[in-house]
Amino acid sequence: MASNQRGQITIIGLGLIGGSLGLALKGAGTQHLELVGFDRSGAAMTAARKRGAVDRTEGDLRRAVREAAMVVVATPLAAMRVLFQEMAPHLQAGATVTDTGSTKAAVLQWAREELPESVSFVGGHPMAGKETGGIDAAEANLFRGRTYCVVPAPAASPGAVESVLGLVEAVGGRPWFVDAEEHDRYAAAVSHLPALLSEALFLMARDAPAWPELSMMAGPAFRDLTRLASSDPDLLADTFATNREAVLHWLGRFEEQLRRQRELLQEGQEKALYELLARAQLERDRFLQEGPALRVPEGVEVPRTGETLAAMLVGGRFARRMRELTSGRGGDERRRREP
Amino acid sequence: MASNQRGQITIIGLGLIGGSLGLALKGAGTQHLELVGFDRSGAAMTAARKRGAVDRTEGDLRRAVREAAMVVVATPLAAMRVLFQEMAPHLQAGATVTDTGSTKAAVLQWAREELPESVSFVGGHPMAGKETGGIDAAEANLFRGRTYCVVPAPAASPGAVESVLGLVEAVGGRPWFVDAEEHDRYAAAVSHLPALLSEALFLMARDAPAWPELSMMAGPAFRDLTRLASSDPDLLADTFATNREAVLHWLGRFEEQLRRQRELLQEGQEKALYELLARAQLERDRFLQEGPALRVPEGVEVPRTGETLAAMLVGGRFARRMRELTSGRGGDERRRREP
Repeated sequence: MASNQRGQITIIGLGLIGGSLGLALKGAGTQHLELVGFDRSGAAMTAARKRGAVDRTEGDLRRAVREAAMVVVATPLAAMRVLFQEMAPHLQAGATVTDTGSTKAAVLQWAREELPESVSFVGGHPMAGKETGGIDAAEANLFRGRTYCVVPAPAASPGAVESVLGLVEAVGGRPWFVDAEEHDRYAAAVSHLPALLSEALFLMARDAPAWPELSMMAGPAFRDLTRLASSDPDLLADTFATNREAVLHWLGRFEEQLRRQRELLQEGQEKALYELLARAQLERDRFLQEGPALRVPEGVEVPRTGETLAAMLVGGRFARRMRELTSGRGGDERRRREP
Repeated sequence: MASNQRGQITIIGLGLIGGSLGLALKGAGTQHLELVGFDRSGAAMTAARKRGAVDRTEGDLRRAVREAAMVVVATPLAAMRVLFQEMAPHLQAGATVTDTGSTKAAVLQWAREELPESVSFVGGHPMAGKETGGIDAAEANLFRGRTYCVVPAPAASPGAVESVLGLVEAVGGRPWFVDAEEHDRYAAAVSHLPALLSEALFLMARDAPAWPELSMMAGPAFRDLTRLASSDPDLLADTFATNREAVLHWLGRFEEQLRRQRELLQEGQEKALYELLARAQLERDRFLQEGPALRVPEGVEVPRTGETLAAMLVGGRFARRMRELTSGRGGDERRRREP
């Protein structure tokens, strides 16, 4: 492949997620991909280059995106709408835009309203992360084995969907198609509510008159349960603001569950409480051993390496691959070199 | 020191905590200590010997304790009272008995009612652990740097207190004196309530019709927050049963905190919610960096190695050390060999 045929992926926002995506792609064998990084912070761009998370950085948003086959927006939610506006006039026709935000309905709406019809938007949300943000915390294995939600806009081209699947597989994630509203409801239960609980537990203890003593006794249980209270408050606030109804729904369900346990405690129903505790242990251990109760349907074959992703991003190769897939062929074909 | 002068410590209950205490003591340079292990399970005794957590095991409780200078009861709370009864007639006069239970008021009451006046009871609670129990999960570093609560019975001799301090230091813990009722109140906030929340969150998700989808999206946040739901249900049930009032107290405080956050969400008070999230992050990071808000008072010098603990357990050496301490001397003296 000639160098002008390298597929360009531009990562906007070089924090924990953007940086980790870059590192993971670089680790996936991507000599035919060019990774370009953009961040409002010059320090983040310098650090991303030093860590090898991108091939080069570009401090001008227009120049960063204009030759990109794929743009990955990995900024806080609050920055996304304006970024979509700013990059819209400069995107290539046929480009794919994806994001990594923790809620999806709002992001898909912004994409619909701000991005041109000539580009395809395919939302994304890797179910991975840590409480420490920033490029320094980035790691190539962050997405390995993790569910990576893929939420195509209704108008997204099959090619764009396929290339986001390629991205997910290249970084080691397990792609899962989900509707934006469903995504937000589920994420509220397993991600946003836990953050709220973590924070409530920490503040309950921190604001108690006995905090000096409590802090003496705080061991692994307290530290783990309050871990999410150390999350970036901007990120959390945006998440709650764009997913309020779903968080409130699950908060109500959680309060019900807590009330049931309170009653068992108050009434001294030790046997019933024991059964609850035993069932929780059994079911959680089963979940850890067996994984999700839902299986990703096997069928559509997706590219597994950075190379196939690169090939897909470079024009005609991709169209042919899609024809193969839809006509039921494929297989080894995708390993052949493009003429 | 002749072999008949080795100080014997008997560990009753060779699970995660008992096994880890054994491994930590063996790692602390204790050739003048003899570690004897007892467990109702023969398999646990075999495994403890194989892992080197004890020097030998003794399947007969009477023989296991009768020559022990210190007995460490590291069984579930539910087994303790009967064990105290069974071992009471066979304990040496002057022996020290300690435990590792997660609540302390009940244990001190059982000790007062069941143990002879000729022995000293000094309760203990290492603020360490993991959700996986058993000797296989034991590790020598489990207590390193962790607060280890020391709760002497009112009648405990100064010597017994000092030797439990020696045990704590030898395994790398940070001893902290605390009253039994205070201990239970604090532990309810930072350990027992978190377990209850963890379990409620897991069951809320597990019992939801959307569990197949939720389990697909469950990432590190959900896994960490529900970790304690995998705790041994016997251990949790005993803990709740012996510390009900305190758990209910903190559960009420937690529900208040949650109500406040629900109001901010419902009313769309984004600024106030942001301030809460930012304060939680700031304060938790400060706690992680600076450690507990309370300092352990410096002053009484405690032995730091298994050797000094061994020396203390072997008769007269201990009495002299106590005289030195109370007369304000000490220092290098403790390194001298006993004539």
